[in-house]
Amino acid sequence: MPEPKPADSVGLVVPQFRHFDEPLALDCGVTLPAYDLCYETYGALNAAGDNAVLVCHALSGDAHAAGYHEEDSRKPGWWDNCIGPGKPLDTNRFFVVCANNLGGCNGSTGPLAVKPHSEKRYGPDFPIVTVRDWVRSQVRLADVLGVKQWAAVMGGSLGGMQVLQWTIDFPDRVRHAVVIAAAPRLSTQNIAFNEVARQAIRSDPEFHDGHYVEHGVMPERGLRLARMVGHITYLSDDVLHAKFGRELRDGKINFNFGVEFQIESYLRYQGESFVNRFDANTYLLMTKSLDYFDPAAEYGDDLTRALASCQASYLVISFSSDWRFSPKRSREIVRALLDNDLDVSYVDIESELGHDSFLLPIAQYHEVLRAYFDRVRTSP
Amino acid sequence: MPEPKPADSVGLVVPQFRHFDEPLALDCGVTLPAYDLCYETYGALNAAGDNAVLVCHALSGDAHAAGYHEEDSRKPGWWDNCIGPGKPLDTNRFFVVCANNLGGCNGSTGPLAVKPHSEKRYGPDFPIVTVRDWVRSQVRLADVLGVKQWAAVMGGSLGGMQVLQWTIDFPDRVRHAVVIAAAPRLSTQNIAFNEVARQAIRSDPEFHDGHYVEHGVMPERGLRLARMVGHITYLSDDVLHAKFGRELRDGKINFNFGVEFQIESYLRYQGESFVNRFDANTYLLMTKSLDYFDPAAEYGDDLTRALASCQASYLVISFSSDWRFSPKRSREIVRALLDNDLDVSYVDIESELGHDSFLLPIAQYHEVLRAYFDRVRTSP
Repeated sequence: MPEPKPADSVGLVVPQFRHFDEPLALDCGVTLPAYDLCYETYGALNAAGDNAVLVCHALSGDAHAAGYHEEDSRKPGWWDNCIGPGKPLDTNRFFVVCANNLGGCNGSTGPLAVKPHSEKRYGPDFPIVTVRDWVRSQVRLADVLGVKQWAAVMGGSLGGMQVLQWTIDFPDRVRHAVVIAAAPRLSTQNIAFNEVARQAIRSDPEFHDGHYVEHGVMPERGLRLARMVGHITYLSDDVLHAKFGRELRDGKINFNFGVEFQIESYLRYQGESFVNRFDANTYLLMTKSLDYFDPAAEYGDDLTRALASCQASYLVISFSSDWRFSPKRSREIVRALLDNDLDVSYVDIESELGHDSFLLPIAQYHEVLRAYFDRVRTSP
Repeated sequence: MPEPKPADSVGLVVPQFRHFDEPLALDCGVTLPAYDLCYETYGALNAAGDNAVLVCHALSGDAHAAGYHEEDSRKPGWWDNCIGPGKPLDTNRFFVVCANNLGGCNGSTGPLAVKPHSEKRYGPDFPIVTVRDWVRSQVRLADVLGVKQWAAVMGGSLGGMQVLQWTIDFPDRVRHAVVIAAAPRLSTQNIAFNEVARQAIRSDPEFHDGHYVEHGVMPERGLRLARMVGHITYLSDDVLHAKFGRELRDGKINFNFGVEFQIESYLRYQGESFVNRFDANTYLLMTKSLDYFDPAAEYGDDLTRALASCQASYLVISFSSDWRFSPKRSREIVRALLDNDLDVSYVDIESELGHDSFLLPIAQYHEVLRAYFDRVRTSP
């Protein structure tokens, strides 16, 4: 028998699909003749159409941000602790939209999709999309949904970068921007970790230059390693220590290469479960989108100038132990926004949980979100 | 024509080999029937035999710490900036010894060696050796060289762990211990990075359960990835930024998976050059030695008690930007030594160069070493 869902859950949700047949010119120079976006919505758009919130997902996210896909599913969407009736992003008040990014592998057009007028999948030929391309594709979704202006656009990590890009490129279509655990661009170290992940995938003999599906295989080893490296950077040294320490699975050292320390077991599990749900070509292009994101670049590395056209009100949140996108990186964004006399709230949340904090129900963090959304005005 | 070598170089050196045919009982329970150590010496042992300094190498080091192997070689030993006539470890005064660790791949018995009474190489059957095993094997080398007591034992990173172990297990055979950029044991995050490196190697289809030599191949992809991950942890975020920033090799983004950012080029080069000089089975067992090192474990995690029998004088050095073995980790060692009323000097060197600092000729660092060795008393 299906378990009853909690009262503050958006309950059962059905992913929706929208086909866009107007060509989309991408930053790389390629034009996508058409594309589909898979998205989910929670709550209802009000008559004035001014209560819509767009949630942008991070590297390995998808459109399933809240609720459940099946009655007997125990695993809710990836940001379910934050989105629902009475939750920080309250679906009693807001109409929440989350779309799988273009190039993704969970419903939207990406490497796994079949090319138009062809019987072949895109695979490695799917163009490398940028954060700006994602925003362009999401604008059309807003149009279709009748959202002229988002009450808020919100996201963590790579999602936060999309939020920033929305307010740069479409300043009149975003009232509030919630930028969480993000950075104005990747550091050299961030790029270095991405490069290791990419090399792990691309050097896997089963990668076949990206044509692994045609070969009936998956570069599982590479994707597993990429995810393991990622997970180390998502967690702080302290939380790794607190969760796993130097605990030995068998209580003793075995002098072999099986799992000895619990952290090894954790990493192997994370790697393993990822290969069952994610596509390697998508992972590759998502890391490239991260590397390329750098709105200040075309303004002589001046982030203040890059944000000069912005109009939104901002909430910027960082987490004290995040070493992937440290609080310092969030403060760069805050400073550039303040230099433009924009309305900015900034909070650094004390957390030992590292970059992953943005996905977790940390009390102070959720209180800040709740308080901020309280001041987002919407029509009755 | 060979280039003249600098006057402060130990000049041309010839690696030496010593066969030990007394069986060596290892921590893992296996007994090695015999083994060879490859080592180099610089300077001369004095008549009293009290000016010998043992240099212990780190994860990927070898016996070639100083000088040149060939007249026309431009690349000196790995710690040449520190060891030589008039250098911080002055070979005019000291007799310096550096041995390749047991299990290594540069002359000492390890996975590439042929098993006694057999025609097969050890390969993956070479036992996992511990830091304590290394010390045991080095004690015999000291005996052979006529060194009853080292004037000093010195090492960085994994080398520093060997120094600590020497002073725990053979307190009367070490007068001074120089422990650089080390930790009393690995953190969970350290183990996590090692595990990613191991999985990269072990999941390479050309690993063949460690029997790659018999198959005429090398798990190059895995070893390359392992080294890339390692290099990220050896350097600080700041030095990566200073050295490479977000500089693009072609001055622009190409929207493909070739080298775009200079950091990618650097990492690929580091990975590539490593596979030409290192053995994968050795890399695996060295990371295990690191993971296992934990002298406090058998004393209820009480490092102070673990060091209770120590008698040496210590110099402990950390580097401000080292995030692999941060200054905090060095201070744990210092505190435990002080709790035992031992003679300890401790310096945290201001450096942006991360863990790699210990190998670099940083002025303040070398001054500290020089000053410390000045106070190491030796017979005329």
